[in-house]
Amino acid sequence: MKKKISILGSTGSIGVNTLEVISSAPDRFEVVGLACGTQVSVLEKQIEDFHPKMVSVGKEDLARGLQQKFPHLEVLWGEEGLVSLAKDSRTDLVVSALVGARGIEPTLAAIESKKDIALANKEVLVAAGALIMPEVHRHGVRLLPIDSEHSALFQVFENHNRNSIEKIILTASGGPFLHRPKETFPLVVPEEALKHPRWSMGKRITIDSATLMNKGFEMIEACWLFDLSPSQIEVVVHPQSIIHSLISYRDGNMLACLSAPDMKAPISYALSYPERISTEVVRLNLAKVKELTFLEPDVEKFPLLKLSYEVAKKGDVYPAVMNAADEIAVEAFLRRQISFVQIPQLISETVSAYQESFPLSLEGILGADAWGRRKAEELIKVLS
Amino acid sequence: MKKKISILGSTGSIGVNTLEVISSAPDRFEVVGLACGTQVSVLEKQIEDFHPKMVSVGKEDLARGLQQKFPHLEVLWGEEGLVSLAKDSRTDLVVSALVGARGIEPTLAAIESKKDIALANKEVLVAAGALIMPEVHRHGVRLLPIDSEHSALFQVFENHNRNSIEKIILTASGGPFLHRPKETFPLVVPEEALKHPRWSMGKRITIDSATLMNKGFEMIEACWLFDLSPSQIEVVVHPQSIIHSLISYRDGNMLACLSAPDMKAPISYALSYPERISTEVVRLNLAKVKELTFLEPDVEKFPLLKLSYEVAKKGDVYPAVMNAADEIAVEAFLRRQISFVQIPQLISETVSAYQESFPLSLEGILGADAWGRRKAEELIKVLS
Repeated sequence: MKKKISILGSTGSIGVNTLEVISSAPDRFEVVGLACGTQVSVLEKQIEDFHPKMVSVGKEDLARGLQQKFPHLEVLWGEEGLVSLAKDSRTDLVVSALVGARGIEPTLAAIESKKDIALANKEVLVAAGALIMPEVHRHGVRLLPIDSEHSALFQVFENHNRNSIEKIILTASGGPFLHRPKETFPLVVPEEALKHPRWSMGKRITIDSATLMNKGFEMIEACWLFDLSPSQIEVVVHPQSIIHSLISYRDGNMLACLSAPDMKAPISYALSYPERISTEVVRLNLAKVKELTFLEPDVEKFPLLKLSYEVAKKGDVYPAVMNAADEIAVEAFLRRQISFVQIPQLISETVSAYQESFPLSLEGILGADAWGRRKAEELIKVLS
Repeated sequence: MKKKISILGSTGSIGVNTLEVISSAPDRFEVVGLACGTQVSVLEKQIEDFHPKMVSVGKEDLARGLQQKFPHLEVLWGEEGLVSLAKDSRTDLVVSALVGARGIEPTLAAIESKKDIALANKEVLVAAGALIMPEVHRHGVRLLPIDSEHSALFQVFENHNRNSIEKIILTASGGPFLHRPKETFPLVVPEEALKHPRWSMGKRITIDSATLMNKGFEMIEACWLFDLSPSQIEVVVHPQSIIHSLISYRDGNMLACLSAPDMKAPISYALSYPERISTEVVRLNLAKVKELTFLEPDVEKFPLLKLSYEVAKKGDVYPAVMNAADEIAVEAFLRRQISFVQIPQLISETVSAYQESFPLSLEGILGADAWGRRKAEELIKVLS
């Protein structure tokens, strides 16, 4: 029987790669639903190619236009549309690939409707891990990571030896500014920060990779996924992005997953788990790669990595606040409203200013998220 | 309940490391039997430290001397002693760590007596895989590899995805002559060949590493252990010996095991499988390692690697003949009777000369082994 899949964020980089994996194994997968924000022309092509039963778009007028073109298709819109699509009873697995905290609610809805989740939207765990993980366990669904680092860890995670895990080593490409002197960071323009050396991704995650905020988020995500504390997670810079992460067991053996930097490798594993399907991912030839290099991350140059450990230890809704501040800071940087070095400054100040007491419920986390955004916006006015 | 362990080859490098692992987890393991050849003074110390119930040594006079010193110990000797020790009903797991083809018979006896096997003696599978593997399956015992390469593969081998394995990549340190020009190979003296850059091992395996014969043996061993054909196994030179081998799955993901070059990492896994115990193996710090490098093996410089693929494809008792010729060639080289470049020549000529028809039984394989030795000895007389 085919696995029935819905994709939240089908026109983004993960969504497009997911559809490529699906189209390479049409005997195994079937698309039930597709959701995107505003890229309706891309969505239209996806509708023609994959014949979903339902779609959801960001705004009502976009939905109306689509409905006219595809009269037999169920067309939804807005946050409500996302949630309905995530809960639909025809779906087995929901690919959660929206960007930012707005993915939390539909992902939670999918879990509560007993869908397995293939998770690319890391903010779901960063901001709402305390809420999401108990629901995952309660409903007995699978939470399958799509991030290459977490997929790597998931692939070599021995469930029966979970107490024998000494630590996890997250690899980081180091981003575009690995070798750029810190003194020149104030001069960084968005065009430079958007040039990621290894991965072609959305804008937000590309900037987050340039500041290493992304690696901090991944550390928090790994804590939730693998039930570890921040002190059990180390980051090592590995510019080639070929070893995607490693687990170090207490017997001195480290297990790792390697592949060419192609998101179809982790995506296919999340879709086909526990089996493995054929993909056209370029095969790695280590003799051609020649060398894999490693170095310590420079936390002076990339203060957000250090901040993320502090925030992870604080727990509570602090990660949601940090994530909210980062979303705002990245947008402001891309608008040239703040400088590159003001990104960490803004996030750090927002986190420091947090003295509210939002509960760890969906409302509380979304409240903390909204608070973080407002506070960051306020601080931008002071800074700029 | 403690796992009861006997070690065939307790005074060699693997045996000594195994006892170190055992002594670090005295609540988990207990030594039942120890067997060695002639290093009786080392064995005496092991008897005092580990209180085995029985021991076996190479010769009768050595056994007599030991019996006088340890009147309450069961002391055996010779091939018969090895077999009795391997079969003893008090043992759960036999560490097969003899050197060469003489390990075949006691290992087979242990399998037939339903012992799990921790296998370091690769000739057991190289020469007698066709005999050993059906017995392993028939008696439902575990065959747990100790070689670092095969342990690595075993650790990332997904049994439910065995049909999704595309290939295996065996890593090779390249040995001491990786960068030595081929033209100077005729001048290699035993002292140079015995200096392995990464591992401290017995003499035979160290020379086999210098000729890459060892990697050829490992390729054949991997075929048997993981039910693969030689064409599914590649060799890549990795001088740091940190990635111990990799499995490439059909989705483009490669799983690998890494550790500091310390045999206690794979040994502990074989002893504690499927669990993992704490060891004092030095933990790998990739940022300190800095780089891992890879290159294609040079089959012109190391013709035995190529020969091993040809021999593996021929199958039958050819691998036993190749192994026998190698044992004789290495001994002759260490005695300075033949030169370094005559090792592959001798092995190749012995294999080419084989036209007998020994059956794939224990007697047949031991017959082919004896034939290979005789033929190699004859050829040495011509060469030297």
